[in-house]
Amino acid sequence: MSQERTEGDLRHTGLSLKHDREWDYEIDRIVKAVEERDAETVGLQFPEGLKRRGPAVTDDLRQELPDDVQVMLSGQPCYGACDLDTYMMRRTDVFVHFGHSPMKESDKIIYVPLFSNVEVTPIMEQAREEELSDPDEDPDVGLVTTAQHMNKFGEMREWLEKRGYTVHTQRGDERLTNEGQVLGCNYASADVDADRILYVGGGKFHPLGLAMEHPEKNVVIADPVNNSVTIADTEQFMKQRYGAVHRAMDAETWGVIFCTKIGQGRWDQAREIVENNDDAYLITMDEVTPDRLTNFGMDAYVNTGCPRITTDDGPQFKKPMLTPGEYEIAIGEKPLDSLEFDTFHGTW
Amino acid sequence: MSQERTEGDLRHTGLSLKHDREWDYEIDRIVKAVEERDAETVGLQFPEGLKRRGPAVTDDLRQELPDDVQVMLSGQPCYGACDLDTYMMRRTDVFVHFGHSPMKESDKIIYVPLFSNVEVTPIMEQAREEELSDPDEDPDVGLVTTAQHMNKFGEMREWLEKRGYTVHTQRGDERLTNEGQVLGCNYASADVDADRILYVGGGKFHPLGLAMEHPEKNVVIADPVNNSVTIADTEQFMKQRYGAVHRAMDAETWGVIFCTKIGQGRWDQAREIVENNDDAYLITMDEVTPDRLTNFGMDAYVNTGCPRITTDDGPQFKKPMLTPGEYEIAIGEKPLDSLEFDTFHGTW
Repeated sequence: MSQERTEGDLRHTGLSLKHDREWDYEIDRIVKAVEERDAETVGLQFPEGLKRRGPAVTDDLRQELPDDVQVMLSGQPCYGACDLDTYMMRRTDVFVHFGHSPMKESDKIIYVPLFSNVEVTPIMEQAREEELSDPDEDPDVGLVTTAQHMNKFGEMREWLEKRGYTVHTQRGDERLTNEGQVLGCNYASADVDADRILYVGGGKFHPLGLAMEHPEKNVVIADPVNNSVTIADTEQFMKQRYGAVHRAMDAETWGVIFCTKIGQGRWDQAREIVENNDDAYLITMDEVTPDRLTNFGMDAYVNTGCPRITTDDGPQFKKPMLTPGEYEIAIGEKPLDSLEFDTFHGTW
Repeated sequence: MSQERTEGDLRHTGLSLKHDREWDYEIDRIVKAVEERDAETVGLQFPEGLKRRGPAVTDDLRQELPDDVQVMLSGQPCYGACDLDTYMMRRTDVFVHFGHSPMKESDKIIYVPLFSNVEVTPIMEQAREEELSDPDEDPDVGLVTTAQHMNKFGEMREWLEKRGYTVHTQRGDERLTNEGQVLGCNYASADVDADRILYVGGGKFHPLGLAMEHPEKNVVIADPVNNSVTIADTEQFMKQRYGAVHRAMDAETWGVIFCTKIGQGRWDQAREIVENNDDAYLITMDEVTPDRLTNFGMDAYVNTGCPRITTDDGPQFKKPMLTPGEYEIAIGEKPLDSLEFDTFHGTW
């Protein structure tokens, strides 16, 4: 059924729409995989914002599947394709990861991207009027979006080109599935020959990271979900980071975090820090949370796992939490003005 | 060095005492294991209350070990021997679990029990005076303690016997390492032919579970750590549990938790509940926390993992959280007065 749909129109995709008109859960594809593999167990992993849909999707699957097939939901926190429930993946015959595009293809994993069906051109028109200069003055614009809106990427590009812009896009590195796609930790697709980048997508999480990673570029946010056009402003973000670095400068003990999540490990970096600092201790964990670190009682922490835990959740930690680059500044190995956004490359 | 110490005297055990006069970390035994295995990596796992000792123990080990041996600390929460950091266990050459006795022996794991060196007889004397009847009237008393005080179990027994008591002890089941030992989830060692049980040990966590599991017995708490003698009173505890059961009776959707921690899984029980209730959904997770469940938005939960998360942390969850037995009451399969403490048996 999902093969027959018109591109961008997800309103007539069958079973998946019983409970939700926004997303296509691709029930048919999952049922087919169960039949092909003669599966006894199906594991479903949703990102945090969609976990609430788990029971309804389970109901739809139970209706289509034989009674003896056990459907189960992952209760592990999930914030990206870097964050697969590997316990569930190893122990189920069919493992479905919803809401993210593949960080690495695997026969073990069915990725269901959950494309948004929101229209993007109205907010692009508003962005053009308010924030993009005339193409006659400067035709170059970079274009990026997130996994949820990748289904409309061709439409976005065409819309800009028709209005005289030269659209610059690229895939970035292997961590990214698609041309023009950004992740919270990777903006290689925005490393294009244009001084301004148009981000079309929901929320500020991605464009703020983008503006941090490319401070020389003007990042225009066209958000079709919240229906707003803004310019990414990293000032508060940067102040918070400089504050954390300053507070860490007096640290006498350092906890160096190696994250055990499949797509968030930077072992060499963690090990190198510990090898060169007698006051540094290696700590391994999957979820990096304030509670877990409090019990160690160290003066400051370096997180080699997800950069967004460090930068966005930083203020929630009781002690300063730095990226590896910020750590080098705090211990005096690099000047303060070398502070830059921490990105994550490669797969696993 | 640790072999030479007098039983119960942990004050002269060498390296381990640099930072802490309370516990023996058995540094020598760990160093020996590293040498024997020509190990490159050493993983240390501490329970929550002792994580703060991690850096000092790491310092001691680093001093004794070659520079190229990498010592790392587990940042995963840990509340028992049921709760091994299996990720770390698989990926280190020497894996040390502190603070608990073996739930299951394995060549992969060095268990360092961390025996307390606190004296037990003064508080036992107080308990005898205040709460134990004269041995001439009733000589039978059950005796139990925790892993931390197992090193003094012989002394406790002898002390009671000298004063005319008939001391009843047993090992319980295979989940328990030692005779007379209790766990938060297993009180089989108290299933002895005596109407009163003397618990000698720190805190109320264990004796409250004991009194819940054996409501017909009088549980005397002799706590040498907090220097107090009390009788275990389960009334508040029971009220809280009945409250949770009542609130769950109207639930239209149930989340059934299967815990993926190595020693906390009851798969058959979880599966059976889901098979017999169309409104029940199987959720798999390691840490069972309020935050993780909130996102699923179900009306009530059944936890087949650690019983103490359900009973002790229950009030922290936004929705009722029941043990499997309490669930049967809530859905009307068992009468309200059948409510009993949930215990955990076997290893893995």
